[in-house]
Amino acid sequence: MKRVPLGPLYYEFSRHNEPRVRIASGESLVLETEDAFSGQIRTNDGRRDRTKKPYGNPQTGPVYVEGAEPGDTLAVKIERIDPLIGQCATRTSDPKMMSEWLGTDCHHGSHVCKISDGVIHWSDAIKIPYTPMLGCIGTSPAWGVPSTMPAGPHGGNMDIVETRPGNIVYLPVFVEGAYLYLGDAHAAMGHGELSASGLEMPSETTITVNLVKGKRIPWPRIESPDEIMVVVSGSPMEYSIAQAYAQLILWMESDFGWERWKAYDILTHVGQISVGYYGFGTVACKILKKYVAHPKHGEW
Amino acid sequence: MKRVPLGPLYYEFSRHNEPRVRIASGESLVLETEDAFSGQIRTNDGRRDRTKKPYGNPQTGPVYVEGAEPGDTLAVKIERIDPLIGQCATRTSDPKMMSEWLGTDCHHGSHVCKISDGVIHWSDAIKIPYTPMLGCIGTSPAWGVPSTMPAGPHGGNMDIVETRPGNIVYLPVFVEGAYLYLGDAHAAMGHGELSASGLEMPSETTITVNLVKGKRIPWPRIESPDEIMVVVSGSPMEYSIAQAYAQLILWMESDFGWERWKAYDILTHVGQISVGYYGFGTVACKILKKYVAHPKHGEW
Amino acid sequence: MKRVPLGPLYYEFSRHNEPRVRIASGESLVLETEDAFSGQIRTNDGRRDRTKKPYGNPQTGPVYVEGAEPGDTLAVKIERIDPLIGQCATRTSDPKMMSEWLGTDCHHGSHVCKISDGVIHWSDAIKIPYTPMLGCIGTSPAWGVPSTMPAGPHGGNMDIVETRPGNIVYLPVFVEGAYLYLGDAHAAMGHGELSASGLEMPSETTITVNLVKGKRIPWPRIESPDEIMVVVSGSPMEYSIAQAYAQLILWMESDFGWERWKAYDILTHVGQISVGYYGFGTVACKILKKYVAHPKHGEW
Amino acid sequence: MKRVPLGPLYYEFSRHNEPRVRIASGESLVLETEDAFSGQIRTNDGRRDRTKKPYGNPQTGPVYVEGAEPGDTLAVKIERIDPLIGQCATRTSDPKMMSEWLGTDCHHGSHVCKISDGVIHWSDAIKIPYTPMLGCIGTSPAWGVPSTMPAGPHGGNMDIVETRPGNIVYLPVFVEGAYLYLGDAHAAMGHGELSASGLEMPSETTITVNLVKGKRIPWPRIESPDEIMVVVSGSPMEYSIAQAYAQLILWMESDFGWERWKAYDILTHVGQISVGYYGFGTVACKILKKYVAHPKHGEW
Repeated sequence: MKRVPLGPLYYEFSRHNEPRVRIASGESLVLETEDAFSGQIRTNDGRRDRTKKPYGNPQTGPVYVEGAEPGDTLAVKIERIDPLIGQCATRTSDPKMMSEWLGTDCHHGSHVCKISDGVIHWSDAIKIPYTPMLGCIGTSPAWGVPSTMPAGPHGGNMDIVETRPGNIVYLPVFVEGAYLYLGDAHAAMGHGELSASGLEMPSETTITVNLVKGKRIPWPRIESPDEIMVVVSGSPMEYSIAQAYAQLILWMESDFGWERWKAYDILTHVGQISVGYYGFGTVACKILKKYVAHPKHGEW
Repeated sequence: MKRVPLGPLYYEFSRHNEPRVRIASGESLVLETEDAFSGQIRTNDGRRDRTKKPYGNPQTGPVYVEGAEPGDTLAVKIERIDPLIGQCATRTSDPKMMSEWLGTDCHHGSHVCKISDGVIHWSDAIKIPYTPMLGCIGTSPAWGVPSTMPAGPHGGNMDIVETRPGNIVYLPVFVEGAYLYLGDAHAAMGHGELSASGLEMPSETTITVNLVKGKRIPWPRIESPDEIMVVVSGSPMEYSIAQAYAQLILWMESDFGWERWKAYDILTHVGQISVGYYGFGTVACKILKKYVAHPKHGEW
Repeated sequence: MKRVPLGPLYYEFSRHNEPRVRIASGESLVLETEDAFSGQIRTNDGRRDRTKKPYGNPQTGPVYVEGAEPGDTLAVKIERIDPLIGQCATRTSDPKMMSEWLGTDCHHGSHVCKISDGVIHWSDAIKIPYTPMLGCIGTSPAWGVPSTMPAGPHGGNMDIVETRPGNIVYLPVFVEGAYLYLGDAHAAMGHGELSASGLEMPSETTITVNLVKGKRIPWPRIESPDEIMVVVSGSPMEYSIAQAYAQLILWMESDFGWERWKAYDILTHVGQISVGYYGFGTVACKILKKYVAHPKHGEW
Repeated sequence: MKRVPLGPLYYEFSRHNEPRVRIASGESLVLETEDAFSGQIRTNDGRRDRTKKPYGNPQTGPVYVEGAEPGDTLAVKIERIDPLIGQCATRTSDPKMMSEWLGTDCHHGSHVCKISDGVIHWSDAIKIPYTPMLGCIGTSPAWGVPSTMPAGPHGGNMDIVETRPGNIVYLPVFVEGAYLYLGDAHAAMGHGELSASGLEMPSETTITVNLVKGKRIPWPRIESPDEIMVVVSGSPMEYSIAQAYAQLILWMESDFGWERWKAYDILTHVGQISVGYYGFGTVACKILKKYVAHPKHGEW
């Protein structure tokens, strides 16, 4: 299996960088990723020094996928996300949209937690289950070069818990080779990523990439063992929810043979929403496969 | 146990209506509720006739709670929600915020489903687990009389799945007697209530009401066996999330002894969000009791 | 001309209050209004004492309009708004949505300004032209009783500068008699009403009310000597703008004979937006009469 | 005076493109710009052919400003905007956020208008005053490469009417040389740019660029002969308004000696808002210079 060790840290989903590796459809790959703080916080005394590293969420990549062309889709199976140095870090900073209720005089602190035996040692008393995910995974657009801050049709900084081992992330291909990047692994993350900082972790991430030729998707999709979902990002979040559910309906219509208004109806009753980083209005709208793929769903 | 049979249908959380029943703190009560369509849809041919019943979400109540005064809180334990007539109904109508993607020429149809053996018979093939909840539950404000359309600090049309049997809904008291109403039961509901119509059901709902004297809460709270949560409603939803998490932090600070910024930190990693009716930006932000009530949480 | 002196202060657009006066269509009327602080701030030492007056924006009314029925429209011409006591007051308080940038430790102060010779004496040095408007004007809904905080289809706390002398405010009638209220006069107000407090002023307001039978409007409309506009309120503001422009297009179509997409086109180039209280997302979208009423607009 | 004729059309505010021209601080410059449709619509039969030109809003540039470094500010005086070919074009397309009210079956049409004698010949009957502005003007970020679709701290596709002749647009410098681009001239534009298409026009635009060393601004600012303003873009628009007014207050504090809460107070009464493209929540919040620069403003 090919391996991409820690190397140049990129802060953009850019088609302009030299590929770190070239793979064929179906190949698996191990990538080492630095944490969202560019490795500046390894102890509780660690601080973000923006004079040295001005940007956040460094990525490993780009991965060039042979044969990928605009209008195709990448299916990226996340096989494993392992801690690279046995710990993670988080930072409490200004509560931005919450300062109206909490005030702005907050404790700005770093907080490093060991990871062992499947738990994150948040404090001596409180352990959080190790449930890793990738904050960022994305392809490179042909129009505009997203930084590692926003999420969008290319994926990017989605910060949604479903980008986790066992799931397949579908991403649109905009340029030849796709130019896939990933990074910003979290040892765990809550809905909304309230402080905009998860339990940030250098990782060893294993993926398998399959190329779906001639399949064009407007926004990222994720498939878990039990569910299918569409990820949309943007404010206001209500609008993202409307759009993600609409795309899920159109997906049920085109790929599973659902009549549009039946799909609309059942999602009202069994649809589920997962909220990613709330500051950017990122959501995944989903449905259980057992409903969507039921062989007799049309018999109403 | 006192019982409030189906009677006058009220469409407002109004302090002006005559109480249907008076209870003491600690009493349990059975209330019959009509469905959100005011009972106009009992078959697939049923239609909403707004010339006869112009409004939606009729409520049963008001319940007058002896001794309740402004500045108190009601703790309403939802004991049971049972179908009253063994069926529920839903309606597909215009997809409002989604018409940009789905078009506006949708199928306007009624869809009645039998409920039996713990499942909702959505179609011959597809069954949905019976997981009932109350779309509306609320007290009556002293300033303004909310219709049964919005949600707010008084509760109201929250349309959130956590108003379900086994959970306790905490609501602020604004006027003497509290003037509690409830209704709009759903046999099941997805996150977001996409079409603004759940599986609407006449119900027999059993509650136990306790009065918490001198406890003032700014927004409804819900306690499940495992979680505590704050419900906030308003657009944009990002702002509701910020406010609900902020209120949850302040709750952890005041009632559980958490240092504010530690509460902020842990919610980033383990907080969960449930999305109610997305058109009004209603959300519940929550945390597991095992974290919040951990006896040694302060030892960081 | 009938006169409604200062009397009971109402804080709701309620159909439940006893009419202060009954008028026929075409009548003019003088109403005295208290300021938004219920008169508690008459000097720079004045404070809002919410234990005595918990609510804001007291209204004068209701005015019962003979013959008004649901489905009609009131045309309220604002003839004059005069200061009742020669001064106005404002209050600087927490910057709510702005605390992220400004902090929360703000100066909470009252600021009383004399009004004379057509100017407001904001300071010894700075004078602001006296340009009065009504923060609130509205009819009473049949479903729900709005407090004097929000704006809505009934009008209410629109806080938009176009509710000023010389303009006609069109409001839907929801109940027999219309139950019109007005108050919350400002000696001047900027776009957005940044601090949620204008230059609040007790007023003597003169209006002429005409009843338009059988004309149903979904949101308030305003006609100035040169413009027509639709007022919509709600968050996110983008959505209010979309809805207000859409309603303006439908108005141009129904009343002025415009083809829908031509109306859409010209508004892109000459439409204007006035922003009311920004916290509630209130906007007026407008067009000059010279365009909309041009006799040959159809000749494209 | 240097001149940049029509040449390569760039669709990104990119630091990666070769400068078309290098100027010193204080120099004036004429730039020819193509229209937002990349010149594909010259007649009423013209159509956007996205297979040939997939992107919108081509820019002329980059202009390299000698001596410009990160942390500086460019002051770009717009001297003139003249039509290059005596006409402009607009397109009616899907009403996106408005389809809920207008339907989606709209007339998709191109509409070319002659420009002469200071008016735009929108139809035989209706003439619109020629009031040109630049839809896009921006510098190139160091982190991320914005396409010509969004607006942001770099400026970009602000689509706000105040980028017009006689005004000075202040833009942050992020990279050496600034890499300034401009384009997307409109012969006229309404508030909100309802259809996302103005009266799009190839232009000859004359600017004078001054470099302000060591002055760092967080968002674009504009100075008109009578006003100063801050432009912020983002959804929800309420939040952009809060941020733009907050930045205006901080500007009044730092450069004009205002006490923060006095600035907050006066903006409530005399602040003005101009709405740019509403789909992206772009606004300018402003105040008349006569207030802000009053020599005795501090004597309260």
